[in-house]
Amino acid sequence: MTTSDSASARGAQDGAAGRASRQGVQANSRQYRQSSAPVVAICVDGCEYDYLEEAAASGQAPYIARLLKADWALRAACIVPAFTNPNNISIATGAPPSVHGICGNFFYDRDADAEVMMNDPKYMRAGTVFAAFADAGAKVAVVTAKDKLRRLLGKDLNGICFSAEKADEATRQTHGIDNVLELVGMPVPSVYSAELSEFVFAAGVRLLETVRPDLMYLSTTDYVQHKAAPGSPQANAFYSMMDGYLRRLDELGAVVALTADHGMNAKHDEAGQPNVVYLQTLMDECLGPGAARVILPITDPYVVHHGALGSFATIYLPSPEAARDAIAALVKVNGIELAVGRDDACAWFELPPDRIGDVVVISQKAYVLGTSPERHDLSGLDAPLRSHGGISEQTVPMLFNRPVQNIPARRRLRNFDVLDLAFNHVQA
Amino acid sequence: MTTSDSASARGAQDGAAGRASRQGVQANSRQYRQSSAPVVAICVDGCEYDYLEEAAASGQAPYIARLLKADWALRAACIVPAFTNPNNISIATGAPPSVHGICGNFFYDRDADAEVMMNDPKYMRAGTVFAAFADAGAKVAVVTAKDKLRRLLGKDLNGICFSAEKADEATRQTHGIDNVLELVGMPVPSVYSAELSEFVFAAGVRLLETVRPDLMYLSTTDYVQHKAAPGSPQANAFYSMMDGYLRRLDELGAVVALTADHGMNAKHDEAGQPNVVYLQTLMDECLGPGAARVILPITDPYVVHHGALGSFATIYLPSPEAARDAIAALVKVNGIELAVGRDDACAWFELPPDRIGDVVVISQKAYVLGTSPERHDLSGLDAPLRSHGGISEQTVPMLFNRPVQNIPARRRLRNFDVLDLAFNHVQA
Repeated sequence: MTTSDSASARGAQDGAAGRASRQGVQANSRQYRQSSAPVVAICVDGCEYDYLEEAAASGQAPYIARLLKADWALRAACIVPAFTNPNNISIATGAPPSVHGICGNFFYDRDADAEVMMNDPKYMRAGTVFAAFADAGAKVAVVTAKDKLRRLLGKDLNGICFSAEKADEATRQTHGIDNVLELVGMPVPSVYSAELSEFVFAAGVRLLETVRPDLMYLSTTDYVQHKAAPGSPQANAFYSMMDGYLRRLDELGAVVALTADHGMNAKHDEAGQPNVVYLQTLMDECLGPGAARVILPITDPYVVHHGALGSFATIYLPSPEAARDAIAALVKVNGIELAVGRDDACAWFELPPDRIGDVVVISQKAYVLGTSPERHDLSGLDAPLRSHGGISEQTVPMLFNRPVQNIPARRRLRNFDVLDLAFNHVQA
Repeated sequence: MTTSDSASARGAQDGAAGRASRQGVQANSRQYRQSSAPVVAICVDGCEYDYLEEAAASGQAPYIARLLKADWALRAACIVPAFTNPNNISIATGAPPSVHGICGNFFYDRDADAEVMMNDPKYMRAGTVFAAFADAGAKVAVVTAKDKLRRLLGKDLNGICFSAEKADEATRQTHGIDNVLELVGMPVPSVYSAELSEFVFAAGVRLLETVRPDLMYLSTTDYVQHKAAPGSPQANAFYSMMDGYLRRLDELGAVVALTADHGMNAKHDEAGQPNVVYLQTLMDECLGPGAARVILPITDPYVVHHGALGSFATIYLPSPEAARDAIAALVKVNGIELAVGRDDACAWFELPPDRIGDVVVISQKAYVLGTSPERHDLSGLDAPLRSHGGISEQTVPMLFNRPVQNIPARRRLRNFDVLDLAFNHVQA
């Protein structure tokens, strides 16, 4: 991130922002029109569509209820792996991982024989729409729940970019803003809390009231969604909280565009035990110990609420024959939805082949994929496992506070189209 | 089919049947144990699990309701393409299409430039478990709703094999039985009717009361399921009808094993119009007219109730580059769940590569695949489209009238395991 005083100051000049507005902005082969109103794009982490409908039906989210109608509330497909980083970076760039490179929290570097965390902007192969708008003179602000995303989303961004998790560490020099806690009027929340997401919304409202960015991106965390099913009191309370902030953003004149990084499903049996397919165990039995390397790209330093168990895995194998044997073995295992080779997986899911293993494995809706039992610490799970990552979590909401126009019926909508729709397909 | 008087007579000899019972039978690398009770395997066409649960909940299917409990009622994965013939032949052989060759109603023969109907047993690359039992001396009977299946299921079978559709044409010489209408006490039903399936059940009961086959297979038609959703009066009436026959088979001492060839889902929008992706139109736009050949393997002479619209298609393309372009185009189209190359599709779905196109396409739960609008006659659809074919119709019920034992937790159950479970995993 290259935020500086001068850059922030430039973003604040009306003339520069106006220039961006009139001319539009190009990023990753897409054109974004001017918007006379501020655009606030929101990524609600793990927002299965049912959460919105249940909260609306409960009467606790009256503003969201008003958006749930034809042409305002759409369904879109997220990126598979249906994980947070690949989808946030896709939304930020308006492009799939085959373009921007971020296909998980880490990948296996075969040449270096190392598992590489992709938490540094240097792993991104595309710039963000945010940076493009800022470079064109627009005022841009990005607020994330966790700090892991902030660095990626802030790549080359001349604007405001901070996380709720480390809101107290934001300085004008490094984050384009200081005194965030004072601005928001909330203390730094726990990284495992609903308040971490509320902080993001509260900051968004305060920024719109004060700085009034031309483009703002708010990205929450799925702490609540991992624990609480749609319609549960805890979930409805979360969406009720969100509802008030969304209404306020609307009242402040913003184009509000809400989508999700991925859906969320229960991944446990009737007794509450997680339904796990342990792939490393299986591969070791099938091919010999250590012949295969199973990568779970959901794994990151924050695994308490899902135990690093998701519905997407990729396997590095020693030979094409081993890959065939692996798929033949997986066909016979309960809980697997699909296992296909790298080339087909990368073509269909739009992933970067150099960061994907020889075989991609996706589990069924009620199942997750693990490596081996001893490598998953499930002691932090205080509720039956809910998680994501697969095709069953691919459909996500995409809501706007005005009607979406001129979308060809045949077009497959993606969550990373949210900025395209907000700038090009709604009336500001 | 090579039924003859002498073969039928042989099947009727207790000694021969006893020999089969004691020794067990082998077919397609699987061993089937003896059963002291007659085994009746039933394939209920298009039996989405919900049909059973809704009918049970309505009180109209009290016998089925008694089976819906742990260890008696399982869920299994059918073959994708989730169509009738590939699944019936898989059940009959205990093996997937990669073994038996029947991956749809027809395939495209590239060398001959011809679309070939696979309605002749010569296209089957494996023998049936039925024929193996009959050859070992067991009395075997197969009753289908439509005649299209009878010829395939009757391959090399020394036993009884007839269809409800042409029950009046059965002779002892050609079908191992005559006077079927008299035996069953029903007239030949319309090929598009619930009665066509009822005839199958009624025949099964009468056969068990008279011939008492050691192994009987009953296969119905999904006329009702294509029209009526789970829980609808028409659907509940069908399962109520079925319920009485199942109870009677149970009372007659049979091991009753029920599964389905595929599930069934609504494939229309809120206005009742079918959600169709026309693939030939799309490929013509993308690659030039006629460059691609789209095959819909659901197509057969009986298309009134689904208009040849299902959720599985395969596309023959002129080059690997065209296949890549096709997948890249399909990624952008609403309603597609997956598009992958032949090798990966055949490895995962266990299909015969020489009868599958360069790309396999599967549509989402609410969508079907067509060629071009003018090639689908939807005038016969008198109810909003319900159909099948894809991953969304892969989960089917597998019910037994006694508990299933000794199945490893990790084993993925398939509908074509139904005979294995009936002979090897329940107490007769």
